[in-house]
Amino acid sequence: MPIPHITPTANPPMASALEHAINSKTKPLGSLGLLETLAHQIGLIQQSTQLALHQPAIIVFAADHGVVAEGISAYPQSVTWQMVENFLANGAAINVFARQNNCALYIVDAGVNHDFGPRDGLLDRKQGAGTRNFANEAAMSKEQCIAAMQAGMDLAATLDGNVLGFGEMGIGNTTAAAALMHKLTQTPVADCVGAGTGLSKEGILHKQHVIEAAVAHHAAVNAPLDVLATFGGFEIAMMAGAMLKAAERRMILLIDGFIVSSALLVAARLQPAILDYCVFSHCSDENGHRQLLANLGARPLLQLDLRLGEGTGSALALPLLHAAVNFMREMATFASAQVSEKSTPD
Amino acid sequence: MPIPHITPTANPPMASALEHAINSKTKPLGSLGLLETLAHQIGLIQQSTQLALHQPAIIVFAADHGVVAEGISAYPQSVTWQMVENFLANGAAINVFARQNNCALYIVDAGVNHDFGPRDGLLDRKQGAGTRNFANEAAMSKEQCIAAMQAGMDLAATLDGNVLGFGEMGIGNTTAAAALMHKLTQTPVADCVGAGTGLSKEGILHKQHVIEAAVAHHAAVNAPLDVLATFGGFEIAMMAGAMLKAAERRMILLIDGFIVSSALLVAARLQPAILDYCVFSHCSDENGHRQLLANLGARPLLQLDLRLGEGTGSALALPLLHAAVNFMREMATFASAQVSEKSTPD
Repeated sequence: MPIPHITPTANPPMASALEHAINSKTKPLGSLGLLETLAHQIGLIQQSTQLALHQPAIIVFAADHGVVAEGISAYPQSVTWQMVENFLANGAAINVFARQNNCALYIVDAGVNHDFGPRDGLLDRKQGAGTRNFANEAAMSKEQCIAAMQAGMDLAATLDGNVLGFGEMGIGNTTAAAALMHKLTQTPVADCVGAGTGLSKEGILHKQHVIEAAVAHHAAVNAPLDVLATFGGFEIAMMAGAMLKAAERRMILLIDGFIVSSALLVAARLQPAILDYCVFSHCSDENGHRQLLANLGARPLLQLDLRLGEGTGSALALPLLHAAVNFMREMATFASAQVSEKSTPD
Repeated sequence: MPIPHITPTANPPMASALEHAINSKTKPLGSLGLLETLAHQIGLIQQSTQLALHQPAIIVFAADHGVVAEGISAYPQSVTWQMVENFLANGAAINVFARQNNCALYIVDAGVNHDFGPRDGLLDRKQGAGTRNFANEAAMSKEQCIAAMQAGMDLAATLDGNVLGFGEMGIGNTTAAAALMHKLTQTPVADCVGAGTGLSKEGILHKQHVIEAAVAHHAAVNAPLDVLATFGGFEIAMMAGAMLKAAERRMILLIDGFIVSSALLVAARLQPAILDYCVFSHCSDENGHRQLLANLGARPLLQLDLRLGEGTGSALALPLLHAAVNFMREMATFASAQVSEKSTPD
């Protein structure tokens, strides 16, 4: 599988042009804070001072995880397919927030342990009926992992818009994400695990022990793709592939919470330049996310104590992307509005 | 001037009904974080589990400040009226963000030092050509201050919607706000002053000294309305009045940055129950704002390092209010969607 080629966005003349455009707007220098940083980043991604967002979309990748056999989730595995049905019926939080923000929403069966049959609105990219239990064996074969990534790349290759948000659903996937984080960042497992959908303190400790034992069991696994195959999930692998392809296509990648960030972590180990294309929508309340974001050098837009997944943070951050683009497109300049500039030196 | 009567929103049966409605939605308990807190608050304000936002509006109150004679701003006073012209021409940041979020925008001349003449789109509530210089004398007479508050009450009485955001424009008004904060919270002046539109370190220190001298000069002034008259501004007094009336009418008050928060501080000293109606849109990058929010017991929705004023934070937070209302209105429940609930004890 050829990894997509991703071009770093750095371009000093364009950066200067963007800075000039931002600073000419009728506002004190720097006073739009992170929106200015965001406008600058989007300008570099689009290599233009004429920013534009087209047809934003969020893809929710759903899959099941064999590691649920270890009792690491507060909810039964059946909730994965039940929530996919909820997505298809427009009843979940991501449906509400995507609709509110005029964002297209795609639901992908990446490997749910359930036979949906052919269904309107469900993209069937099923790689299997859930992964195997990584407490005992690799979650995916290398071939399965690569096939899942390739399916993600193929999907991202078909989209017309220039903003792609990522979301996921999969009972047990905070356990997979925590294992990935530990293996790829050397953060202690205890700092990578959290309550997921609502574990008790004892439940979190059990989850930690399951991961620690699995990591010991698979001690020889270290290369990013091998780590992904061993501890990841079909939805995580598919997201990593879609992210790589989307960045190759110079789309803006809207990163959601802990699990989406773990997929990005894998992708960034394969192609570090992907980070130039990532907007981090929020810092979730899941324990490991803050540290994972720090590891990725990310400053998230929102801090709302969300821990729902589904791409809800991506959808909720979308208005801030529009705001960054709109101030660049629509605000007057000091010159055009005949507003006086600063009267005192800095 | 009778101060509007504001009813606290506390209502234990309604609070229980709201909690039940929030927890029945298809998501892990508490996983929508601050949006759940916000939905609960809006439900108490509206005394209903059927939340609704109608005709959201932002009012930008503009006025000038005599204290600019002390050289406390990075921009000349003429920028106040020039920015009002920019608002009327739809060229400022608040125009862009209000339009993006389908929010009505009203521009009020509360006391700008400029003759606009009759103008479409400008609400003339001019109380004077700017306040006097509080370094030497009270910024407003008690009568002027009360007239400004009354004008704000009258304006808020005319609005049809149930969400009212506040914004302001006034060169020098971070100096007035810092003085109000110091007088009403006893926070040291050094912790109340910041860069405003872009002062240097020396400029900030000078601003601090101007306020400290003025506070010493007016040492006998302590009652909230006297503090407002002495150190405030026409736009701040008018906002305080509008806030009190809007809360009396059970509207949601959307609080912007440092200056708007200083107006709320005065209002809350007069009617503490007003805080039940306040949604704090953001924590700004202006030095005193974080501490002022803490003093008001507020947890802001956004932290984007904004320091522009105009109500921009209010406008940018509006999508989060819609999200809080929409998840309550549109999400399925565990029962309706036939999704399994937790399988493990908390």
